[in-house]
Amino acid sequence: MYSKQILLGLLCIISCNLSAQTQDAESIKQIFNETLVNGKAYSWLEYLTTNIGHRLSGSVGAASAVDWSKTELANIGDSVWLQPVTVPRWIRGESEEAYIKGRGKKDMIKLNVCALGGSVGTGPDGIGGNIVEVQNFEELKALGANRIKGKIVFFNRPMDPTAIHTFSAYGGAVEQRVSGASEAARLGAIGVVVRSMGLDQEDYPHTGSLVYAAGAPQIPAIAIATKHATLLSQRLKANVDLQFFFETHCEIMPDVQSYNVIAELKGSEYREELIVVGGHLDSWDLGQGAHDDGSGCVQSMEVLRIFKMLGIVPKHTIRVVLFMNEENGLRGGIEYARIAGATGEKHIVAIESDNGGFTPRGFNMNASTEFRNKVLGWRPLLEPYGLTDFTREGGGADISPLAGTGIPLIGYMPDSQRYFNYHHTAEDTFDKISKRELELGAGSMAALVFLIDKYGTK
Amino acid sequence: MYSKQILLGLLCIISCNLSAQTQDAESIKQIFNETLVNGKAYSWLEYLTTNIGHRLSGSVGAASAVDWSKTELANIGDSVWLQPVTVPRWIRGESEEAYIKGRGKKDMIKLNVCALGGSVGTGPDGIGGNIVEVQNFEELKALGANRIKGKIVFFNRPMDPTAIHTFSAYGGAVEQRVSGASEAARLGAIGVVVRSMGLDQEDYPHTGSLVYAAGAPQIPAIAIATKHATLLSQRLKANVDLQFFFETHCEIMPDVQSYNVIAELKGSEYREELIVVGGHLDSWDLGQGAHDDGSGCVQSMEVLRIFKMLGIVPKHTIRVVLFMNEENGLRGGIEYARIAGATGEKHIVAIESDNGGFTPRGFNMNASTEFRNKVLGWRPLLEPYGLTDFTREGGGADISPLAGTGIPLIGYMPDSQRYFNYHHTAEDTFDKISKRELELGAGSMAALVFLIDKYGTK
Repeated sequence: MYSKQILLGLLCIISCNLSAQTQDAESIKQIFNETLVNGKAYSWLEYLTTNIGHRLSGSVGAASAVDWSKTELANIGDSVWLQPVTVPRWIRGESEEAYIKGRGKKDMIKLNVCALGGSVGTGPDGIGGNIVEVQNFEELKALGANRIKGKIVFFNRPMDPTAIHTFSAYGGAVEQRVSGASEAARLGAIGVVVRSMGLDQEDYPHTGSLVYAAGAPQIPAIAIATKHATLLSQRLKANVDLQFFFETHCEIMPDVQSYNVIAELKGSEYREELIVVGGHLDSWDLGQGAHDDGSGCVQSMEVLRIFKMLGIVPKHTIRVVLFMNEENGLRGGIEYARIAGATGEKHIVAIESDNGGFTPRGFNMNASTEFRNKVLGWRPLLEPYGLTDFTREGGGADISPLAGTGIPLIGYMPDSQRYFNYHHTAEDTFDKISKRELELGAGSMAALVFLIDKYGTK
Repeated sequence: MYSKQILLGLLCIISCNLSAQTQDAESIKQIFNETLVNGKAYSWLEYLTTNIGHRLSGSVGAASAVDWSKTELANIGDSVWLQPVTVPRWIRGESEEAYIKGRGKKDMIKLNVCALGGSVGTGPDGIGGNIVEVQNFEELKALGANRIKGKIVFFNRPMDPTAIHTFSAYGGAVEQRVSGASEAARLGAIGVVVRSMGLDQEDYPHTGSLVYAAGAPQIPAIAIATKHATLLSQRLKANVDLQFFFETHCEIMPDVQSYNVIAELKGSEYREELIVVGGHLDSWDLGQGAHDDGSGCVQSMEVLRIFKMLGIVPKHTIRVVLFMNEENGLRGGIEYARIAGATGEKHIVAIESDNGGFTPRGFNMNASTEFRNKVLGWRPLLEPYGLTDFTREGGGADISPLAGTGIPLIGYMPDSQRYFNYHHTAEDTFDKISKRELELGAGSMAALVFLIDKYGTK
């Protein structure tokens, strides 16, 4: 039996908690209302993607994006600055083409391809010869140098369509793109063709970084549209001696100066404790970098705008970071973490949006069980907005260099079904963005920042 | 303290349950794999939307859709038949236009509009005159016959952008479209312009049914693109005497013969007990009826195909029903329920997909608490596929006439954010469909049918 005093005490605790939860629900409702009614994410993204366009590190577009986002953030933040980062500069060159050779020009089958980012070019004469299809590195090694030397290697392992979370399918196939060139070069291959990282039968190729291994010869590599990967595979089955040709003119140029763009809304109580929210400002040089990662940039900017417009004074300092060079070097993320360490900045959490501007599903995390449970406790506040999945491992590439600090690293996780229709392609354009989905993502991030700022991470 | 026997018994119950759940998880995985790898929903939808096109009741397209779907279902089902339904036939006519009059032809502002389904036409000379903006029926009534008589009424209440589930926003605005004409006509209005049921600022109008109230004069009604509704409202604020003109040539024709298309996979144990899964085959006469409701039709057909291809023999009979005339009469749904009642058919559940072909969120229901709890118990099996929301009221228009039987009525509930970009517009075309999202919807419905078939509804 409980005494009356204890019962009353319990009732008070329960009702106080309820009241706090009701207040939080109301604050989060206001956050979403602000972005759904007055949001700037969509018009910002329209400018970034259609006026500035794509913005590979070191390009004119990247420089314009730095200037533009600094100006926009200056209208919102208490302070804005540029953090210098030296970035690689790779250029695709004038043209790129590939075909299956025929007896004459008429029999030739043109294929939709693009150079992989970071690849060397073929030289003006292109490269041609026999092509060998493999599904994975084991198959490649089993064939050995005898069967590979002097040939082009075709990596054709598809992404697994049965993986419900499409990033898992990407993870299961992307080694072909990243390491395929060096794996093949070690056995004497002269070039590499990689099936695009897309799930559907598509007409357009997906670019993305390759990494040349130290010591391996640097051979040219291209991605081929999935539809044409299927076609090429069929033709190879009919004729193993099929002649393949491709020509690219890409070049690796000297490094250039660029910047991370940073803006803050100062905290009232723990001014020196930072909540970072960000995306990456650079994109590939195909399309407009709308989902990857214009969305993440404007959503992060919108978090600051929402707090400002609603007059929510954060206890901690909220810092927006638009990272440079995620796509082909991660130099922005690495430099950001280096400076943070060198100057002894105190971060309490970092949140990144780099999974597209789609409808909310949840947040993935690289965090302690204690913090995960804390976020699970907020689930009733977040579920009404479609945020139901908090169990996955994750974070984000740009914030990953902060892992050493031990703070929770969090990735905004929208629905993943359409992401690999656009990722690293000419199709990643503004018209593929749903205004409401983009805004709900911004609201999701702002809601999480609100809860972390109010209740801390411990 | 428990005895050893009781403990062993408990362990057995737990492990048997676990084993059943593991088996169910495996079956559901196979269901999703089948549709993601070998699915026909997407190619079926391509044919239905791009070869046949739109298919308003009584149109050539509707008749073709009946023939085509019967033929396709005959390849899968144990039996297929057509259920005769007499449907209304409304035709839009050759042209429709609206403008704000100016001093001369040059000052005229053309507006993007379309007649509302079921509306009478204006006659060859169109109608013109003053236009009065109202937000709701209360405002209309407050103005009264004095201020409305002889004028055009402009219903301009927007859908609420802060409603996270967009169907709620639709529910809060659609009375203007359905009943606005008669409400205005009772006060002597000569025509009605309704803000389109869309959340964004769009260039294209949304059609949809109006219902003329008995005894009210039947006046012509059009929908105006949201962007132009905003423009018209601004112009009216600047000039209350603004002259508005519109012309439509729609006609209400005599009823014609059409059909519900029905196919079955016979049950092994409870052959006479029916699990219905369906969508509606008719669409509006703008666009291609891809999300509304080509998606629901091909997903329902896919449920049957999945069971057949996986060799899952259902205990109950699974019946696919492609209903005719959901959009402007619901005659198919009403006739289906009438025949079911008259012949004493035993239905145990009806599931409809008519909320678009988007990524899965859950199922809404019109069902007993007992049944809701049963579905909630299946949540661990459904969550991995994005199905997390089972609390909403719902069902589907076509299955709603079965409500009297007391069986659970269930609606497949995909994400709702993009639905009202396409609903009832020229933009509802095949290219707006994500193959994976469509397939996941089919898998979701098949998984639910599998669980209901195995465990029943009690």
